[in-house]
Amino acid sequence: MNNRPIGIFDSGIGGLTVFKEVSRMLPDEDIVYLGDTARVPYGIRSPETVMRYSFECADFLLKQNIKLLVVACNTASAISLQEIQRNVSIPVIGVIEPGARAAVRSTANKKIGVIGTEATIRSSAYLKAIKLLDESIEAIGLPCPLFVPLVEEGWTDGMIAKMIVERYLKNLKDTSVDTIVLGCTHYPLLKDVIQDVMGDVRLIDSAVETAKVVKDTLKSQKARANRQGRQKFYVTDSPEKFVNVGERFLQNKIENIEKIQLEAR
Amino acid sequence: MNNRPIGIFDSGIGGLTVFKEVSRMLPDEDIVYLGDTARVPYGIRSPETVMRYSFECADFLLKQNIKLLVVACNTASAISLQEIQRNVSIPVIGVIEPGARAAVRSTANKKIGVIGTEATIRSSAYLKAIKLLDESIEAIGLPCPLFVPLVEEGWTDGMIAKMIVERYLKNLKDTSVDTIVLGCTHYPLLKDVIQDVMGDVRLIDSAVETAKVVKDTLKSQKARANRQGRQKFYVTDSPEKFVNVGERFLQNKIENIEKIQLEAR
Repeated sequence: MNNRPIGIFDSGIGGLTVFKEVSRMLPDEDIVYLGDTARVPYGIRSPETVMRYSFECADFLLKQNIKLLVVACNTASAISLQEIQRNVSIPVIGVIEPGARAAVRSTANKKIGVIGTEATIRSSAYLKAIKLLDESIEAIGLPCPLFVPLVEEGWTDGMIAKMIVERYLKNLKDTSVDTIVLGCTHYPLLKDVIQDVMGDVRLIDSAVETAKVVKDTLKSQKARANRQGRQKFYVTDSPEKFVNVGERFLQNKIENIEKIQLEAR
Repeated sequence: MNNRPIGIFDSGIGGLTVFKEVSRMLPDEDIVYLGDTARVPYGIRSPETVMRYSFECADFLLKQNIKLLVVACNTASAISLQEIQRNVSIPVIGVIEPGARAAVRSTANKKIGVIGTEATIRSSAYLKAIKLLDESIEAIGLPCPLFVPLVEEGWTDGMIAKMIVERYLKNLKDTSVDTIVLGCTHYPLLKDVIQDVMGDVRLIDSAVETAKVVKDTLKSQKARANRQGRQKFYVTDSPEKFVNVGERFLQNKIENIEKIQLEAR
């Protein structure tokens, strides 16, 4: 038994889809969430900048005495996960490996599509993770830069969402992939439109898969908490927008939120 | 005569529309451009964060021995222009006052629309500037958060651009404004679609208006240069994306670019 909190960080709001699944599957756990909203989005930044920001986020959460760290940002997971794992003593879980593993289990025709931000796709992190699990699988990466602003604007249904999804995914439609990984934490909010446009394709939600790994890890380490979990949010810019948009992500109130400044390492 | 450079900063790429007009109107001038691409976009950040970032940009350019500073970012102009003017001894020109002035000259029915990022509109900077020039004018602000990613994706014509522009501007159409200020440096690239959707309305391009003020200021101070101008670009993140997207903004090659790190004040 271990009542120390789980730490989750993301470049901003997107990681709340992971937060939501973790808190749903593990209602007994305290969770501390950090959104680096002053420097969002990581997806357009260089690898060295993403690495530096990731370590600053991890350092802050480690000071909150967490027992497990979730890097709930695809860009940060792609670029900095291994380096963080090498440098800290608690378990560190990213969003890429769980998504890749679920996609490999799901595909029948061994063709997987991966959609995400420019940085995530350019890193080839999902493609590498999938090949590592089964190198006979063909994986195709596709960046969809407008999906994040579309979700943050709340335009997740209707004609504009459909046309943008169609325009990005038309190339995937021709490839006969039978499984698509939503390789960005914002994308679960577009799940219905994507399913509608892509038809008979299995969508993998990395947030759900990551939460499962968190649960299994705590269980195997006998580190589960046993009381009603509490939630705490930290952001690096004004909480106002985070609360407004974030409550749409969580379909729940965001309380107990505080603005902090991250220290450069 | 004065051959010191003109300094221009923006949170990223958008200020290149101002750069383009300044270099077109003043081909003899050296121009140093700073894009704070590691921390773009400013439009979603809190006022205190924008203030801090703006001063870091201004400090960097002042060290390049500039003779005039252009704050080519609507968010930074709205929030930090006056404070920068109070703290430096060279002329400092923002993008808001020139745009507001041109709009006031343009309107016949005294109804002006202003479109921009959330932060610019929330600041009411254009509305205040317009009221200061003529308080009988009615000015209506409208944030259009998807315009910037749309422009950066290069989707500045076609059906999706048209539908997004229509969706945001339908409220303005009902107000009978006869003039609209493009209150974000990215928006001139959507000028054709906006004109098409809005019909018989005068669009004010803040970049053009700002360049005119720069020219007039140098002339009145007898501080014009008299040789073929050189251009230098600085960015705070990897230059790759800046060059790719920026060349679309400038319709010209971007050479002589360097990555720097801004020091916190």
